[in-house]
Amino acid sequence: MAATGTDEGTGRAPERPLFAILMAGGSGTRFWPASRAARPKQLVAVSGERTLLQSALDRVRPLVPPERVLVVTAKAHARAVARQLPEIPKKNLLVEPVGRNTAACAGLATCEALARDPNALLALFPADHVIADTPEWRRLLVSAARVVSERDTVVTFGLPANRPETGFGYIRAGAPVAERLAPGMREVAGFVEKPDLETARRFVSSGEWLWNSGVFVVRARRLRELIDEHQPKIGAGLARIERATGAAARRRALAEVYPELPAVSLDGGVMERVPGMVLMPARVGWSDVGSWSALDEVLPVDAAGNVARGPVLALDASGCVLYSSGALIAALGVKDLIVVQTEDAVLVCPKDRAQDVRQVVDRLKQMKKERLL
Amino acid sequence: MAATGTDEGTGRAPERPLFAILMAGGSGTRFWPASRAARPKQLVAVSGERTLLQSALDRVRPLVPPERVLVVTAKAHARAVARQLPEIPKKNLLVEPVGRNTAACAGLATCEALARDPNALLALFPADHVIADTPEWRRLLVSAARVVSERDTVVTFGLPANRPETGFGYIRAGAPVAERLAPGMREVAGFVEKPDLETARRFVSSGEWLWNSGVFVVRARRLRELIDEHQPKIGAGLARIERATGAAARRRALAEVYPELPAVSLDGGVMERVPGMVLMPARVGWSDVGSWSALDEVLPVDAAGNVARGPVLALDASGCVLYSSGALIAALGVKDLIVVQTEDAVLVCPKDRAQDVRQVVDRLKQMKKERLL
Repeated sequence: MAATGTDEGTGRAPERPLFAILMAGGSGTRFWPASRAARPKQLVAVSGERTLLQSALDRVRPLVPPERVLVVTAKAHARAVARQLPEIPKKNLLVEPVGRNTAACAGLATCEALARDPNALLALFPADHVIADTPEWRRLLVSAARVVSERDTVVTFGLPANRPETGFGYIRAGAPVAERLAPGMREVAGFVEKPDLETARRFVSSGEWLWNSGVFVVRARRLRELIDEHQPKIGAGLARIERATGAAARRRALAEVYPELPAVSLDGGVMERVPGMVLMPARVGWSDVGSWSALDEVLPVDAAGNVARGPVLALDASGCVLYSSGALIAALGVKDLIVVQTEDAVLVCPKDRAQDVRQVVDRLKQMKKERLL
Repeated sequence: MAATGTDEGTGRAPERPLFAILMAGGSGTRFWPASRAARPKQLVAVSGERTLLQSALDRVRPLVPPERVLVVTAKAHARAVARQLPEIPKKNLLVEPVGRNTAACAGLATCEALARDPNALLALFPADHVIADTPEWRRLLVSAARVVSERDTVVTFGLPANRPETGFGYIRAGAPVAERLAPGMREVAGFVEKPDLETARRFVSSGEWLWNSGVFVVRARRLRELIDEHQPKIGAGLARIERATGAAARRRALAEVYPELPAVSLDGGVMERVPGMVLMPARVGWSDVGSWSALDEVLPVDAAGNVARGPVLALDASGCVLYSSGALIAALGVKDLIVVQTEDAVLVCPKDRAQDVRQVVDRLKQMKKERLL
């Protein structure tokens, strides 16, 4: 899988150079006050010292050299991304003039990879999750790349669905496939996006449905064709960008074209329409850390059920999420509480109100407290 | 009462120059993290922008010029006190080498006042409380000074006992006295220090017992004699300090003598043994703000029962004490909670655990987190 060297599993040299695409364009409010408009979740050190974006890079670093890591980000976050990823060449930071969801984002990265290497193989990642078992994750990526090299298919990664989450996409695992190349691989037998609770419960108890990770491995040329086929407007827009020669002309084309592109997701707008996709089940301790209350999925939990990040003193406290950016948090006699400290704000709310943190952000917007957003 | 000018009530010039003694030597842990070893409660802006010590000075400023305000403080707090009270001459800051409770503290200030003016009249104040009705308080002080000028007695101030507090001293109001000089004055018919709960309840329901404010008005010479009489060891020690001539010699004597003085309170060790004391009932909205949960006694309470200091956003929050030193506190869906933010620490605890904040401080001591103490 490495640019030079051999594939450990088979001893064969890799057929195509692998590019890692980190899609870091997201925004969100659920991790306020640690996340801000200018510092969304992926740019926050949710679970340790490294931010989620930095951790995403760390995971692929042994597989892909920095010059083949492309990072797509929003204008507002470009400087922060560059600061967080000093090892990535500046020209590998692809800045979207406006956010247009992941299909356009992936398309932009695909064009860039093709311009650098027409034989590029892509591994596309969201950059806002945590993976506990990185070695296993890398092993699966290597297997997926091998399968795509041989078969020109699309590999998607499915995660164990351990609760009836209604905000996720689900993938049904079909018959085993390509077992010689990668044991455990399955055909994709269906997609369902954001099911209702009853359906989600059925999916979870069936054991046949996995969560869609949003991670794909595919040849760049193939993805470019799939975009043309399933999202022709995006395909046409990308073609205009591709035709522009020189950095300045390309930037101009991007600024003109991008706002017109349909904002659809790579999953729903393209991948779910592709026949013959392959599913790689991934038991890698994945968590999307959807809110502060999910911090217990990615941080050690003490005997009293508290999770802590940074300097924390818990006395008679239980079930709490205590997240400090530097100041000591002293939690005395409290239960199931979230306390988040940053330099300019402190959030305190019960764990079962974690989803309502956006209400705080909304109110701050109304109050025109831009500095705190 | 002013140094120059006339007594408004009688038209007579004041007989003796009034000195205000601010006893700011206390320490304590109940206002951690706003209060620290180096910044005890009286040096904290508990209820507004001015600290309790600054507010104590503000209250007497119209009555006493800065050169007649003496502030007694501990070595560890001397610099902070000087910074907080820039209008007070440096030589008016009396620094105790070690804390020896209020009898020694008052004695030290008495010697200093006598050295400046043998006819000095003293108003002695603790500096760690809040008074809502400052004009009334000043009126009572003026009356008390008038009574002491005429009668050479000791006036103490009694506060309405509105709850069976077991940590306070109580004074029994006796027969009316000196009504011509100051309406409402009563004889002191007894002292009880820190009664048990049942006794405290009886005191409160009787209406005859008031809380001891710890504020006294007395001639300096008289207080010096009372100390000699009731605390002869302190009297002898003070005499050694008085005999030292020159600033350096006096500092040396202070350092030698002070650690040997008995640590007794002015109330219990001296005043409660004085016959014929006079009690001035004071309905002035006094609060000792004994802990974070008492902040609702001194700050405005909103419709949901929250009190806030500094930038605060309360959403579905009720009964909370939210104290910020600068960062926004966002309290979402919490009830009866104390949240205190300072630059280097955040405290979160239920209101009914306010007295246990010292446990946090004790633990930090064990952990040798000196920076946070």
